Amino acid sequence: MSYRQTLDFLLNDWLDVPSLQNRERFADHSAETFASVLDSCERLARDKFAPFNRQADTEEPRVVVDHNGERVHLPAASLAASRAYAESGMLAAAQDYEIGGMQLPCVVQMAANSFFARAGGNVAGGAMLTSGNANLLMVHGTPLQQTVFAKQEFAGRFAGTMCLSEPQAGSSLSDVATRATPDGDGFASDPLGARYRLRGNKMWISNGEHELAENIIHLVLAKIPGPDGKLIPGTRGISLFIVPKKLVGPDGELTGERNDVALAGLNHKLGNRGIPNTLLNFGEGKYPVRGSNGAIGYLVGRPHEGLRCMFHMMNEARIAVGMGATMLGQAGYEASLDYARNRPQGRPTGTGGKDAAKPQIPIIQHADIKRMLLAQKSYCEGALALELYCARLVDEQRTGTPEASADASLMLEMLTPIAKSWPSEWGLEANSLAIQIHGGYGYTRDFPVEQYWRDNRLNMIHEGTHGIQALDLLGRKVVMQEGAGLALLMARMQRTLEQGRDVPALAAHASALADAMAQLRTATRGAWSTGQPDEALANATPYLQAFGHVVLAWIWLDVALCARPKLAGASADEAALLHGKLAACTYFFHYELPKIGAWLQVVEARDATCRTMDEAWF
Amino acid sequence: MSYRQTLDFLLNDWLDVPSLQNRERFADHSAETFASVLDSCERLARDKFAPFNRQADTEEPRVVVDHNGERVHLPAASLAASRAYAESGMLAAAQDYEIGGMQLPCVVQMAANSFFARAGGNVAGGAMLTSGNANLLMVHGTPLQQTVFAKQEFAGRFAGTMCLSEPQAGSSLSDVATRATPDGDGFASDPLGARYRLRGNKMWISNGEHELAENIIHLVLAKIPGPDGKLIPGTRGISLFIVPKKLVGPDGELTGERNDVALAGLNHKLGNRGIPNTLLNFGEGKYPVRGSNGAIGYLVGRPHEGLRCMFHMMNEARIAVGMGATMLGQAGYEASLDYARNRPQGRPTGTGGKDAAKPQIPIIQHADIKRMLLAQKSYCEGALALELYCARLVDEQRTGTPEASADASLMLEMLTPIAKSWPSEWGLEANSLAIQIHGGYGYTRDFPVEQYWRDNRLNMIHEGTHGIQALDLLGRKVVMQEGAGLALLMARMQRTLEQGRDVPALAAHASALADAMAQLRTATRGAWSTGQPDEALANATPYLQAFGHVVLAWIWLDVALCARPKLAGASADEAALLHGKLAACTYFFHYELPKIGAWLQVVEARDATCRTMDEAWF
Repeated sequence: MSYRQTLDFLLNDWLDVPSLQNRERFADHSAETFASVLDSCERLARDKFAPFNRQADTEEPRVVVDHNGERVHLPAASLAASRAYAESGMLAAAQDYEIGGMQLPCVVQMAANSFFARAGGNVAGGAMLTSGNANLLMVHGTPLQQTVFAKQEFAGRFAGTMCLSEPQAGSSLSDVATRATPDGDGFASDPLGARYRLRGNKMWISNGEHELAENIIHLVLAKIPGPDGKLIPGTRGISLFIVPKKLVGPDGELTGERNDVALAGLNHKLGNRGIPNTLLNFGEGKYPVRGSNGAIGYLVGRPHEGLRCMFHMMNEARIAVGMGATMLGQAGYEASLDYARNRPQGRPTGTGGKDAAKPQIPIIQHADIKRMLLAQKSYCEGALALELYCARLVDEQRTGTPEASADASLMLEMLTPIAKSWPSEWGLEANSLAIQIHGGYGYTRDFPVEQYWRDNRLNMIHEGTHGIQALDLLGRKVVMQEGAGLALLMARMQRTLEQGRDVPALAAHASALADAMAQLRTATRGAWSTGQPDEALANATPYLQAFGHVVLAWIWLDVALCARPKLAGASADEAALLHGKLAACTYFFHYELPKIGAWLQVVEARDATCRTMDEAWF
Repeated sequence: MSYRQTLDFLLNDWLDVPSLQNRERFADHSAETFASVLDSCERLARDKFAPFNRQADTEEPRVVVDHNGERVHLPAASLAASRAYAESGMLAAAQDYEIGGMQLPCVVQMAANSFFARAGGNVAGGAMLTSGNANLLMVHGTPLQQTVFAKQEFAGRFAGTMCLSEPQAGSSLSDVATRATPDGDGFASDPLGARYRLRGNKMWISNGEHELAENIIHLVLAKIPGPDGKLIPGTRGISLFIVPKKLVGPDGELTGERNDVALAGLNHKLGNRGIPNTLLNFGEGKYPVRGSNGAIGYLVGRPHEGLRCMFHMMNEARIAVGMGATMLGQAGYEASLDYARNRPQGRPTGTGGKDAAKPQIPIIQHADIKRMLLAQKSYCEGALALELYCARLVDEQRTGTPEASADASLMLEMLTPIAKSWPSEWGLEANSLAIQIHGGYGYTRDFPVEQYWRDNRLNMIHEGTHGIQALDLLGRKVVMQEGAGLALLMARMQRTLEQGRDVPALAAHASALADAMAQLRTATRGAWSTGQPDEALANATPYLQAFGHVVLAWIWLDVALCARPKLAGASADEAALLHGKLAACTYFFHYELPKIGAWLQVVEARDATCRTMDEAWF
């Protein structure tokens, strides 16, 4: 089965995306326009991205210093791919026509973008940052900020970043030390927004410096000092600022002035090397601007609400990270499937033992290779379904009835930590299995799978580590609104399992899902039964892992429910696709879902082994 | 706790290694001589190996061509380390005095060597191949082969390799195509052994070419064609040959002739880059020798018994791989422990929520960081205990009473697939957790953990993949001699758990181990209940995983049984060590052992999901 066939099945058959054309916002669209967007992205990814993914890894970004200061050099192919992507219009695919968008559903946009992630995220993989940055401004920026900055980003003239972390503050954003002070007396009268001067260092900034676009628009978290000049502790103190690398006038044109944003260094990474990852200094005086100290920045939204605004981009980024992890997994799955079909080795484990006189068989015929392929298939296609489901929720949030929209928002809040963390963990495991199938060859740089594995290792770290996602899920999402989110998610699962009970071939899975949900409920209650956050959250990560597996079991059962009835009357090719989905579902229920027992046991018991471990005992 | 403290505890307190001095072979030794070997290896590894592990990765081997032909360039530090290691005498540490050895127990040799693996295996990491090669000759070679080849290897003058795989035959050794034909009429009269001419290509040969020694002694699997000139199919056809890179006379001196062994290429790997991994051409005419075609090789052991002879080295190599994986895990554990103690980030999850006005805490105080450290500790120290236990079995095999020796052999047969596979899988997971603790910093090449993770990924592949180990365990070891090996292992476990039942603090673990053993027995019976190998072995890998976890639970309980009574009267430092062992044991029983349920379920049911998956459905 090709990836495209799976994608089409999930979009058209499972999520019924074509019916979105009945909504006013998408009225100009149809199954055909959706398909043509997928076609052109599939082609573009194949021609301009995939062939250069390895080059972007081996020729990683390097700093070049000349009379214009320091700049980051990238391979020509990355520039060409970046330009081609901007020209495709995909940066603004889901945006309004009037800002240059295509008004595509988010789910179609995500599906189309999946081809680029699958081709390898090293080539121009920062596009998501640009559109995410612009999307944030469309929600929280002023109309002028939108036309001056966001519109240029959607058009690909400007690129975007998100600047949250600092060397001393990664997961703990409340400790951000970058400060912003009003830029003189006229700070409030700048048409681009209240004008501040920023000073500080930002770490781990992807695409923080490059020449893929005319300008780079940094969205920067910084603190406005209180009346006593001190920074306000905690996240309350944080505000959000637009800090362009080059200053821009209200007409959207560069003024010719460089802002005081200086590249302080590149991080040399294990993988994901095509994307320059930078340490940036803001306002340290390297490029003094307009005769005063500090980098010029424009407030976005209201003061002290920076983190809330930034979460708009972060939530989007988290789902994008999940999708990226999924597609790296998928790329490895496809590579190892191809290898397994073509590599002869060994003989069947028949009842009569192995007969060495017979010819060798392709390794795909060995049960253990099939196991590793099925595991990958269940992880990657399952995660793909989850990510598309989330994107479909975004469409519902934006274009559904008020009630459906509210439900979609709640579902998204619940699912975001899973959509981010689950593919990061299991897409990585998929890549490890892809290496394993290749044997020694998979350990060499002559095959792509080792790079996928290195690239994917980032995804459990950035945009909130696994541990942070776990605290968000068990500490916040599960208990918010007196458990309304969890109840809604459980109700959706319940609906699926009740449908599953009526299908004999799926009834056992439905029953297993019911058991798993019960275990999850019991563990959730157990964790919070003493009301002590330190007791409840000590095992938040195993909880996140189990929760993810239950969500994926639900997704797989729902996909299987869609596939099963289509078997009757299917062509051989269609039947193979449908059988593949059903087999991956069975694999997930038999081999994966039972893992939750071990994870939930410690959660329910509020196991204190880790929490009470004395530091001196390590 | 330092690594050395743990090692001393396991050797002296748990395995009672000092008592070995009561055996005749070790009569010259004492706890003091053992300690002094550990001291000097610890120092040597710290001074000559650890500082260069990164350099050996970044300056990976490259081919240099000059008038002498092609050679492999390595950093000077690797040569210096290799020389220092040879001078330490460790290559022959466990050998007889008369061949230049120290007659140390294997368990002391392995413990001493662990320091080098912990310093990073990229610097002169091929020493194990040299001693393993020589060890094989001490068992299967003629007296002259031993003095001419093995003795020079033990002295560090010659290096060794093992040449099994070919480009078309990795896991499937029965398909080896390298052939050996008698070298003229006088082939039987060479004092170095029956002389053959070899022709073929060998792939994945670690240390296949380098200049760390005067000569390289290849042990090569090849087939002697039958009377009809055809290769005999299957492993029966395989014989074993000594093929020196440079020819050697019966006096052990180089004759000045080069043998026809040509470097055909280097493999460019994901990790483990310090060790040159080569493709070698034997007898293709690049270096014609003595006016005839083919590389000269001397038969080792009897014809057609090559694989049996080679298994002597392979079994040793498998345990060495497990030890290497363990020590990479340990190195990552120590690095992440150090980072966690020193990196401030976030605040305690107290009952009153987080107070951002308070100073940040070192991340080691977060429960989730402790969880990741405890997981690493339980994996790496548990695996270390297992590997030392296996080495102690080798000593028992060699110096125990006949009955004890036979039992030790059987135990080793049972434990070898676990000793190889378990640390490969969980040492890698430990390295991933070490990266996770470092956050973004762990993903950069500025910290060592990403390299450990890359290096460790090899260990599930070489010396028999995970899948091969699994088939060996469930298909051969568990059923051999009507289950005698499994019964013996279970009896040892039973003894431990019965002791555990009498210690209130460990009784729950003992009971959990009893349950786990029962599950393992039931699953083993279920797998073979139809007597069909394809049904039994379809889930051999999950069986291997579960079996490994049960073995490690037993090891941990046994270690805890040793630690517990020592708490009374222990100094603060000793108590911290003992509490650490007990906590790691508890972690393993609470968080890890319950995982076996999911693995064994499919084994017991002979789940056919993978086996029956149609290729077209992927």
